Amino acid sequence: MQRVKVELGSRSYDILIGRDLLAELGPRCRKLGLGSRCAIITDSNVAPHYGEETQRLLEASGFQTTIITIPPGEKSKSLKYVGACYDTMAKHRLERKSFVVALGGGVVGDLAGFVAASYLRGIPFVQVPTTLLAQVDSSVGGKTGINLKAGKNLVGAFYQPKLVLCDLATLDTLPERELRAGLSEVIKYGIIYDALFFRRLEEQLEGALKRDPAILAKIIARCCAIKAEVVSQDETETGLRAILNFGHTIGHALEAISGYGKYLHGEAIALGQVCAARLSQKILGLPSADAERIRALLERAGLPIEAHLTAAQKQKILAAMKLDKKVSAGEIKFVLARQLGKDEHGQKVPESEVLAVLEKIQFNS
Amino acid sequence: MQRVKVELGSRSYDILIGRDLLAELGPRCRKLGLGSRCAIITDSNVAPHYGEETQRLLEASGFQTTIITIPPGEKSKSLKYVGACYDTMAKHRLERKSFVVALGGGVVGDLAGFVAASYLRGIPFVQVPTTLLAQVDSSVGGKTGINLKAGKNLVGAFYQPKLVLCDLATLDTLPERELRAGLSEVIKYGIIYDALFFRRLEEQLEGALKRDPAILAKIIARCCAIKAEVVSQDETETGLRAILNFGHTIGHALEAISGYGKYLHGEAIALGQVCAARLSQKILGLPSADAERIRALLERAGLPIEAHLTAAQKQKILAAMKLDKKVSAGEIKFVLARQLGKDEHGQKVPESEVLAVLEKIQFNS
Repeated sequence: MQRVKVELGSRSYDILIGRDLLAELGPRCRKLGLGSRCAIITDSNVAPHYGEETQRLLEASGFQTTIITIPPGEKSKSLKYVGACYDTMAKHRLERKSFVVALGGGVVGDLAGFVAASYLRGIPFVQVPTTLLAQVDSSVGGKTGINLKAGKNLVGAFYQPKLVLCDLATLDTLPERELRAGLSEVIKYGIIYDALFFRRLEEQLEGALKRDPAILAKIIARCCAIKAEVVSQDETETGLRAILNFGHTIGHALEAISGYGKYLHGEAIALGQVCAARLSQKILGLPSADAERIRALLERAGLPIEAHLTAAQKQKILAAMKLDKKVSAGEIKFVLARQLGKDEHGQKVPESEVLAVLEKIQFNS
Repeated sequence: MQRVKVELGSRSYDILIGRDLLAELGPRCRKLGLGSRCAIITDSNVAPHYGEETQRLLEASGFQTTIITIPPGEKSKSLKYVGACYDTMAKHRLERKSFVVALGGGVVGDLAGFVAASYLRGIPFVQVPTTLLAQVDSSVGGKTGINLKAGKNLVGAFYQPKLVLCDLATLDTLPERELRAGLSEVIKYGIIYDALFFRRLEEQLEGALKRDPAILAKIIARCCAIKAEVVSQDETETGLRAILNFGHTIGHALEAISGYGKYLHGEAIALGQVCAARLSQKILGLPSADAERIRALLERAGLPIEAHLTAAQKQKILAAMKLDKKVSAGEIKFVLARQLGKDEHGQKVPESEVLAVLEKIQFNS
């Protein structure tokens, strides 16, 4: 088992990474002094694999559990499902010391985290991410939230979990497409923070795709360590934390205009990263060889690197970007790379450049 | 103008109290460095009096405003209206530095505060309370929230405003019944914290009911100062802050079982305080003369001090109390007074005693 600590004073917590860690969930929750009742929030993909087991394990440690199962996919990150969770939790009389377990991928974690942040003005919660994307990214750092029709993650809270428990065995049942989508965020960490890690990914990508346990364990631990370092320095994204959004400005907009259905988050982010790399060349002088390495690694991971967009879709993407949380005084700001491993946030990009780049992702260059 | 400061480190803020202060709203928001767009959330009672004026004043200071008007009353503190606010704010492209102005009573402030706390994971907000109850209580201290069918304020956030601006002129248009309901929380401050203030209220109640400006200004400032002192010591209610809930355990339950329609919050709290005073006699030995002074002052303020409850209603009240946020490990805890001005929180009260006290409020003793 590997342990990464997120240092946030009284709100510090551990990320535990290892195989068959689920069995430790009950005893760890006991040790954290959590109350006797808990709600396990999960989705209907994950529930058949780990729902009952998680319930049984928590009850064996003396907790009373209620399981709340939502439909899978981004569409469940809505006020409607937030309300359904509240009502079930109230019905089961969850109190201030009761807690929420988020068992699933990014959608479940984001929704469950926001529910925990707001029910009774905040009760404790524990993340048990079961996808690669959630293990390396969304379960760590306390960003929780839901989507509005107008855009992704437009509502939420900064609210830290008490524990993140990554059981690598849960990745065994992860669909291939989800694994590849997770690698999109993994590759991002190399681009924004660690050129050596990027090179290691170039060397070990096939092993990761074959789910080699030792390779995946190391990759996940490194991603969590990078995220923990960034979040510890800037919890609420007043500066540095923004680098984690590399590829996300265009990526989020793509998700929004396609109704959160066509692309998985990691897939939209892959396209966003291809665009961001091109903008980085243009605006910050990222060497073209590095931009090509980014594109090539995403392609080897089986991620989309081109899209066919109509003129109307391009305009919709621009409009959606203007609703992004990263907009300030109407200006769209990007995270761009000066070189591999060195990103700069707050880069203003003219609309014409954004359009030019959207033009280009229509053809595999 | 009087100024009370709520000391909370980097989240400290001023409460300004005075006549015709609304004119200062624009310049004060400028001084706080808030962004150029804002949403004014108000209700259809307040909007005709102050909606346009507030909009005009803010626009004169260079802000772009959008007004969101909700129906009056507790029923608007719902997820439905939260969603409506989000959508309007997204449509008007409110950004991270944009802000929310809560213009109205407790319902508007609680709802608008939660909306501000969660939109884009939190944007600044300013309280402009227009009822006595909101000026002395709900606008100060950062408790925001909405109701569930299962109970009052079961969802929300601790989220501090950047400024509270109490314009005493707004009380001129306050309906008589709302003024009396506000006095219920005013009297509470005397009971929980300041016996001398309670005596002053006994002397000046008629003046307050006649809306004597000098008397009201002093009363409001003292209540805000007490609340600021309590909140500065215990922002998230891990201890001391609980004393502010005197009368609220039974009061909230009464509101819940009557569908948030029959009683104004202050009225339900008046009944709750009569019950809490009786329980204080029984459990903490509050002198009966003091319990009688509490009952008498609430009565002089024209507040309900008796209710006719069926056996089924009493059972419903007990059930609703068990859903209260103050419940821990299934035990109902009360704030009780040992003497006037000295309250103790966390008092366990057996169900039989609660039922006995509910029995008694059926008759004016």
